[in-house]
Amino acid sequence: MKLTPSPFAPDRFPDLPSVKGVEAATASRGFYEKRGALRDDVFLFVCPEGTSVAGVFTRSTTASADVDWCREALKEGGGRGRALVANAGNSNAFTGKAGVLKNEATLSAMTGTLGVDKAECFLAATGVIGEPLPDAAYVGKMLPELKDKLGPPDWEACARAFMTTDTFPKGAGATCEIDGVPVAIAGILKGSGMIMPNMATMLCYVFTDAAIAPDVLDRLLRDTVDPTLNSVTVDGDTSTSDTCMLFATGASGAPMIDTLEDPRLDGFREALFDVFRDLSHQLVKDGEGASKFVEIRVEGAVSQSSAKTIGLHIANSPLIKTAIAAGDANWGRIVMAIGKSLEPIAKDEMRIWFADHLVAEGGMRASGYDEALATAHFAGDHIAIRVDVAAGRDTWTVWTCDLTHAYVDINGAYRT
Amino acid sequence: MKLTPSPFAPDRFPDLPSVKGVEAATASRGFYEKRGALRDDVFLFVCPEGTSVAGVFTRSTTASADVDWCREALKEGGGRGRALVANAGNSNAFTGKAGVLKNEATLSAMTGTLGVDKAECFLAATGVIGEPLPDAAYVGKMLPELKDKLGPPDWEACARAFMTTDTFPKGAGATCEIDGVPVAIAGILKGSGMIMPNMATMLCYVFTDAAIAPDVLDRLLRDTVDPTLNSVTVDGDTSTSDTCMLFATGASGAPMIDTLEDPRLDGFREALFDVFRDLSHQLVKDGEGASKFVEIRVEGAVSQSSAKTIGLHIANSPLIKTAIAAGDANWGRIVMAIGKSLEPIAKDEMRIWFADHLVAEGGMRASGYDEALATAHFAGDHIAIRVDVAAGRDTWTVWTCDLTHAYVDINGAYRT
Repeated sequence: MKLTPSPFAPDRFPDLPSVKGVEAATASRGFYEKRGALRDDVFLFVCPEGTSVAGVFTRSTTASADVDWCREALKEGGGRGRALVANAGNSNAFTGKAGVLKNEATLSAMTGTLGVDKAECFLAATGVIGEPLPDAAYVGKMLPELKDKLGPPDWEACARAFMTTDTFPKGAGATCEIDGVPVAIAGILKGSGMIMPNMATMLCYVFTDAAIAPDVLDRLLRDTVDPTLNSVTVDGDTSTSDTCMLFATGASGAPMIDTLEDPRLDGFREALFDVFRDLSHQLVKDGEGASKFVEIRVEGAVSQSSAKTIGLHIANSPLIKTAIAAGDANWGRIVMAIGKSLEPIAKDEMRIWFADHLVAEGGMRASGYDEALATAHFAGDHIAIRVDVAAGRDTWTVWTCDLTHAYVDINGAYRT
Repeated sequence: MKLTPSPFAPDRFPDLPSVKGVEAATASRGFYEKRGALRDDVFLFVCPEGTSVAGVFTRSTTASADVDWCREALKEGGGRGRALVANAGNSNAFTGKAGVLKNEATLSAMTGTLGVDKAECFLAATGVIGEPLPDAAYVGKMLPELKDKLGPPDWEACARAFMTTDTFPKGAGATCEIDGVPVAIAGILKGSGMIMPNMATMLCYVFTDAAIAPDVLDRLLRDTVDPTLNSVTVDGDTSTSDTCMLFATGASGAPMIDTLEDPRLDGFREALFDVFRDLSHQLVKDGEGASKFVEIRVEGAVSQSSAKTIGLHIANSPLIKTAIAAGDANWGRIVMAIGKSLEPIAKDEMRIWFADHLVAEGGMRASGYDEALATAHFAGDHIAIRVDVAAGRDTWTVWTCDLTHAYVDINGAYRT
């Protein structure tokens, strides 16, 4: 099946800054040849000695063998990372012992070819779940070719190499200063379906040449992922492979940051957030079958977590997603979704807006409600829903897309 | 929009037994006239003095005014019920003070016309959420006409009168004996979208001429609803109007049952369960856009509640529902859904079957897996998925339907 590009696909891949110390290469295992399109489907990233790394992974209890390994390596290696290999086409989830053997063979090729410690090697795989692997060496045997090709990252080529049902490659970058020294951040991400983050979303790799201690990097990553990747949903389904890693090479020459409270981190923190938010929005905009981008802001909740729960109930409701696809400003279904969240609300003081137009208040339709105005907003491709549940002071924003015929088509046809 | 009948629509409405003491009537408020099909859209049921009643309602925090009233009446009236009025076309949810005034006007017409106590009068409304009401009397003014028409229930006419996106009227009945006296049970139900039960599902009314004390009836209802109505899902969305009530007139002449442990209840309990299971299956078979009926049985869970949670994660996954619609035996997505439930499982001992065909075990695809067999099962319209999560001894079964293009169409077009 040929996928129709998302209406939000950008004209071209963004220019990402050069991140000192990072090298990369892509190659083809030929996995997509049988699907009629030979393309690169594996990449290698290599970072210099002393690179810090942090990672967050799916909470799924059926996580892939690759995710299991990454967790183990992070613990064993104490937050140091030198090499990363990812492949598309087979998720290596629910593949039993064969999946572990494939990892061992890949890791052994990485340590042998690159001369790096095993605990500093990371793996990822994305594609069909439970599909038996061709053989244990099918990724590892690519290492010599990948090593020969190493050079400054072609970010777009890397972003393309791990796409599955994605219709455009996704990347974002930023620059900032730490103590006056210029520092770069660049990241790539893949994901389109099976997207309902629970720690992290699909595969996302971000690199910086800042020098940041592993424990600080870990906290920075967690703080950044929660309001970005962990606040988007396409279909409420959580992948078995969700992985997000942040590598800091230190090659910029900026001073080492070893406490989270260091004020020299301020600009970096902001730049990192911008990169993650940009990648998160690209993820939703390439949601399977997406025709509309939807921002849902929940205010007046008793806690941030309550606001997020309410936002995700709205974002995951098939009734709301299909109404949005049809351009139907059906605010009653938003009331339904808030109600089924079972979170504390003050029903009669609650207010709902579409963009700046107040549609509901006082436990009923707002007196100034204008169906034409509401419908005009829903005819656009950026939908803004705001809800004040009037129970407290906390807010959260989540992002999603609509549910269209194309989602049904893609997920009936994918796999075979 | 004209709805295409469900492929599971029966040739004709089932024959329901006569339930002694119950009278009913239907009428038209003309609500559906503007939609091009004048039809009855309101019904009245009347039961004799001394009728016991039990009810379970949506847990939604944005419940309709009608649900609020029913809860209040049950409490005030001590489980006695004489009259029930339900209307389709407007759910009276999120209609503010106007919704309460409509209820007061309807209740006042009921007590005046029928000469029954207010606390023994019950209400229901189903349709669009948040749509302002025409006027407070728009249901109440039908009472004289309804009273004139009262007679032995035409169950099919009643079942049709509260349909919204339903494509066929739903009813089920059974007969049994209590202490040698024949007793009848008959019920009707409406519901098609916004179906993910949380206490009860949409509108369901069951009548019996058994004599059962209110507190026993209440427990019987709760015990029966949990493995039936509360175990089906169409789209994971919970209605603001979910209501299920059980009326026992006592007119059969069977002895009064006033303890749950009374052995004379055994046959009745079984018959009641059969009626509720039948209605639940009809609900799923008329799920919006449904083309396949899916039974999901979870075994080996640490508790019944855990088994149910896992079952509902499988049943509500859009990726699984779209794969089933396409006839794709995509068992990897079942692994994904089990994983995202976060319930205790033993990943490497888990087993998955399609009907009797073992598709996964030992943490991977089963060695005897036969894609042709699996695909043949998914080509049918009754899909049986069985999962043993190998963590304990508890089981639960849930029922759902697939997610098709028709669901997207219906929910883009409904309301306008």
